[in-house]
Amino acid sequence: MKDPKAPIGVFDSGVGGLTVLKALRRLLPREEFLYFGDTARVPYGGKPLAMVRRFAWEIAGFLLRQGVKAIVVACNTASSAALPDLAEDLSVPVFGVVEPAARAARGFRKVGLIGTQATVESGAYPRYVDLAWAKACPLLVPLVEEGLWDDPVALLVARHYLEDAPKDLEALILGCTHYPFLKGAIGAVLPGVALLDSAELTAQEVARALEAEGLLNPEGQGRTLHFVTGDPEAYRALAERLGEKVEAVRRVSLEEL
Amino acid sequence: MKDPKAPIGVFDSGVGGLTVLKALRRLLPREEFLYFGDTARVPYGGKPLAMVRRFAWEIAGFLLRQGVKAIVVACNTASSAALPDLAEDLSVPVFGVVEPAARAARGFRKVGLIGTQATVESGAYPRYVDLAWAKACPLLVPLVEEGLWDDPVALLVARHYLEDAPKDLEALILGCTHYPFLKGAIGAVLPGVALLDSAELTAQEVARALEAEGLLNPEGQGRTLHFVTGDPEAYRALAERLGEKVEAVRRVSLEEL
Repeated sequence: MKDPKAPIGVFDSGVGGLTVLKALRRLLPREEFLYFGDTARVPYGGKPLAMVRRFAWEIAGFLLRQGVKAIVVACNTASSAALPDLAEDLSVPVFGVVEPAARAARGFRKVGLIGTQATVESGAYPRYVDLAWAKACPLLVPLVEEGLWDDPVALLVARHYLEDAPKDLEALILGCTHYPFLKGAIGAVLPGVALLDSAELTAQEVARALEAEGLLNPEGQGRTLHFVTGDPEAYRALAERLGEKVEAVRRVSLEEL
Repeated sequence: MKDPKAPIGVFDSGVGGLTVLKALRRLLPREEFLYFGDTARVPYGGKPLAMVRRFAWEIAGFLLRQGVKAIVVACNTASSAALPDLAEDLSVPVFGVVEPAARAARGFRKVGLIGTQATVESGAYPRYVDLAWAKACPLLVPLVEEGLWDDPVALLVARHYLEDAPKDLEALILGCTHYPFLKGAIGAVLPGVALLDSAELTAQEVARALEAEGLLNPEGQGRTLHFVTGDPEAYRALAERLGEKVEAVRRVSLEEL
């Protein structure tokens, strides 16, 4: 039997999954979290899917060895590459970020998707929703990792990627956990289009499922321990620019995975 | 005794080193080349130096097993991380891209450097030249890898990074082999500043050294075989946008390194 007091593991290629972590902590303030940012190997989006799948398995294994009771793959590329296999083969509940946003998109008539190249090419979203338009946007992750979401550059890059979107798009899936930081720029280019952000929707699904399985922590304090494969201080600085106060961060070498 | 008819190995994290390859092929039209682009792990610039050093050793080992007579580390981050050790410990001549550009910079009074974070923080350039200004520009490599060097985005990003450069800069070292593609944008932001591109300078050094060691190939045909760790077709498409006609490309899995 899994221990309800065990932490929830959340992972992403870098800082993007912090949007999901934040939504989880708001909905589940009594949980403890382990957040894993694979900052030495970010970005995942241009890498072969098989490689990203291997990274996802490595990190899931690491988190399980830390004793997590559930795993949230807070990265669309990794979710596209590793789910549903990971969920079927692990002994703890595993949640991805693709399905929640794709389901929400079904309520709209004409839906677009932006994501990394790997996510767009994986075909993960069309399993759940018909897409009228999809575009890979390789520069958006580095733009966020560089902290430039409020810079005029963000608007120009968003325009570059979105200029050929259909004029009658009703909703756009932000198919990468980094993209919510760019909502301002994306919304300015596509006014009136609903921007579907998987962070909140995924957090709701996690909360529902943990409650249904009797896995909610009755006495946690909402702490987060961060693990990164790259430089911890660079991570701390960037995470804090993104509004995440990093109390504790540990460097994990790739050999430990 | 090394075989003068053996190929020259050239490597980079991605397509940036093609600027060096092109300069080499122009100066040494009778050589054969192996070009290695570590496209599954690009970019190197934000990764810990120790990791980049390991990558450089892995790739050098792979190229040696292919029988190269010399190795050109056509990547500033890898040159900063792995040289001079790599040159001291291998049995073939090894050339980096840092020293040639840094030497050329000594002819100017006020010199600046742009490069990846790892290159700037490594202190590799100050070993050879005093720098009045240095700046890490993490977005420039993804911008080139995305093929956007002629897009208005390039100008805006260049301005973002260069706006605090001293007004009386005489020369700027393009401390990354991807940056020559951005010469237009960089030159527009810093008119009148000499842009020092290591590709040509490194090729000259390689040509001189191979001649001095009697290692020039009398009868090669200027062919290049490309190796990549990521998707070969994506590489071919991008390389061709950069003006490199890719006749032969082979995928190398990271396990083969």
